[in-house]
Amino acid sequence: MHKKLFIPGPTEVFPHVLEAMATPMIGHRMKEFTALMDEVVPKVQKVFYTNNFIILSTSSGTGMMEAAVRCCVNKKALHTVCGAFSKRWAEISKSNGKEYDVIEVPLGKAIKPEMVEEKLKTGQYDTFFLTHNESATGVMHPLEPFADLLKKYPDIVFCVDAVSSAAGVKIEVDKLGIDFLVTSSQKCFALPPGLAIAVVSDKALKRAETVKNRGYYFDILQFKKYWDTKNHQTHTTPTISHIYALNKQLDKILNEEGLENRFKRHIEMANFVRKWVKENFKMFPEEGYESITLTTGENTRGISIAKVNEELAKRGAAIANGYGDLKEKTFRIAHMGDLTMNDMKWLIEQLDDILKKM
Amino acid sequence: MHKKLFIPGPTEVFPHVLEAMATPMIGHRMKEFTALMDEVVPKVQKVFYTNNFIILSTSSGTGMMEAAVRCCVNKKALHTVCGAFSKRWAEISKSNGKEYDVIEVPLGKAIKPEMVEEKLKTGQYDTFFLTHNESATGVMHPLEPFADLLKKYPDIVFCVDAVSSAAGVKIEVDKLGIDFLVTSSQKCFALPPGLAIAVVSDKALKRAETVKNRGYYFDILQFKKYWDTKNHQTHTTPTISHIYALNKQLDKILNEEGLENRFKRHIEMANFVRKWVKENFKMFPEEGYESITLTTGENTRGISIAKVNEELAKRGAAIANGYGDLKEKTFRIAHMGDLTMNDMKWLIEQLDDILKKM
Repeated sequence: MHKKLFIPGPTEVFPHVLEAMATPMIGHRMKEFTALMDEVVPKVQKVFYTNNFIILSTSSGTGMMEAAVRCCVNKKALHTVCGAFSKRWAEISKSNGKEYDVIEVPLGKAIKPEMVEEKLKTGQYDTFFLTHNESATGVMHPLEPFADLLKKYPDIVFCVDAVSSAAGVKIEVDKLGIDFLVTSSQKCFALPPGLAIAVVSDKALKRAETVKNRGYYFDILQFKKYWDTKNHQTHTTPTISHIYALNKQLDKILNEEGLENRFKRHIEMANFVRKWVKENFKMFPEEGYESITLTTGENTRGISIAKVNEELAKRGAAIANGYGDLKEKTFRIAHMGDLTMNDMKWLIEQLDDILKKM
Repeated sequence: MHKKLFIPGPTEVFPHVLEAMATPMIGHRMKEFTALMDEVVPKVQKVFYTNNFIILSTSSGTGMMEAAVRCCVNKKALHTVCGAFSKRWAEISKSNGKEYDVIEVPLGKAIKPEMVEEKLKTGQYDTFFLTHNESATGVMHPLEPFADLLKKYPDIVFCVDAVSSAAGVKIEVDKLGIDFLVTSSQKCFALPPGLAIAVVSDKALKRAETVKNRGYYFDILQFKKYWDTKNHQTHTTPTISHIYALNKQLDKILNEEGLENRFKRHIEMANFVRKWVKENFKMFPEEGYESITLTTGENTRGISIAKVNEELAKRGAAIANGYGDLKEKTFRIAHMGDLTMNDMKWLIEQLDDILKKM
């Protein structure tokens, strides 16, 4: 039996997207591919309120996180760590031999702009890395205060991991001055995994020109060169099936549901699930930093989350256990992508029933 | 109208594969994913006659070419260049700041083992890179003579780009002693692009342990760690749709068609197309090195290849023009993947008819 996915990625993929994944193949050096890119890229720009350069990368989001590190860090990176995924970004800097420092807060807590300012004002850094939504803990950082801070440091390339928030939460890239935004297909875009999206500013592209040993596959200047001089193609063979699916999904997002309605739906689902968690458990994230796409509850009742999920599986659904060290101490319910209030109501009914019987 | 693809990748994808691309989604940290990997990986090993470690990478083949460079070159790489794709591998070494030398032959010519031996015996190199099938020129290198040579140099990691040959031509990885074989989904496996496969020996894995700054996304030791300690998962979110499609396709390859029959079919198609090219044009590759998966003809009649392709498009098919500087000077007909003798006969009939009318 298929389990409906209430996990923070891959999230549930609906039939209209699966159908688009089965589109017959075209060549990536044929004019049909240029036509596809010319359709899809402006739609991606709309989702991010941006005129910046769009990269469609055949990889997971991690690939584009590595691209940001390899292409933009010359001097020293400032990473902010509040969970496994923000930690991974710092590890990527390490594994690429980059100089970096880390601001780290305990699990469930959020990074504060003042912590960042204290570091930035030392003048050591040329890049700043922030995880918008830490899906290991369910902490979401409001982006505006960081954007305001970064405007005081025009030489710093501002990189945002929006992997589990983009297309579910409004992110106005140009207004916020984000230089390198990374996201991927299998979260709020509700596509299968396998495609990453990056939104890259001229500042980030200019920086890349000064950075040596950027590699090839994730070199943002290769993407730019092929876009500019090779009919909007990519420098390596792209995952055409995902790009077809993205194109179809963007039509649905922009024309059928509407962006504002999509963001509103995510807030409604978050409020609904948070209310249930507060009534039955306790919210794990620091107050004021609760994620809009994913609710993490603290397992205050000491039940077996694995057992809950086993019962849920029999009913055709899956939620996520806590991540890493938070396993069984927390649980995570994703409400992202194409899931609706009806889905969330059905899920909570099941959870209520399972908890009652345990 | 859909054009049947007779281009050297993406090659034509048949309905049973497209259907598998639309499989409903599962979580990559769920037991369903482990079960899928446990099904598919032994089948991949069968295709390559190997017990070596199998990497399924969410990228194009280029990504795994970069992995070979980043994870295995410590001292100096020896690259062999006979066209655009073998040249790219050398460029990848360059863009990653690796020391390397290049043996280069003119387009259409093949690399000879004696050229390689002359370099290897200097003792400067720790890695050797060979492109099995150069799809820019249609030159295929028999692997045995290189494998025999490399056996004299047990400290050298032997890397083979089999992107446009694997699963169409027999490659016995263990017998040949290939340490790092790279291929991708959209060639002879006849899947959509978006998945790369690497076959990695213990020697290559051991080498990686000594190489610094391997990065994260393409680090073969990360793949190995997750396989060994995390239920055969991948360290980043994989393209699950492609893995489903690969699994279905491998059943067809191994159980329905049979590997030997598949290799035989590729030889038959190659012989058929070569005969036609020799009768009407001239073979571009050096005699004895003609590719089994792709036939490159020299445009001795000075016709417009672009025009031929335009006419062919009206009949629902596409061949490939020459690559880069070889555009219009050569043309390329791919006979790889799931294409059959009937497809090739149909194509040649169309080409005969188009040529007659031009």
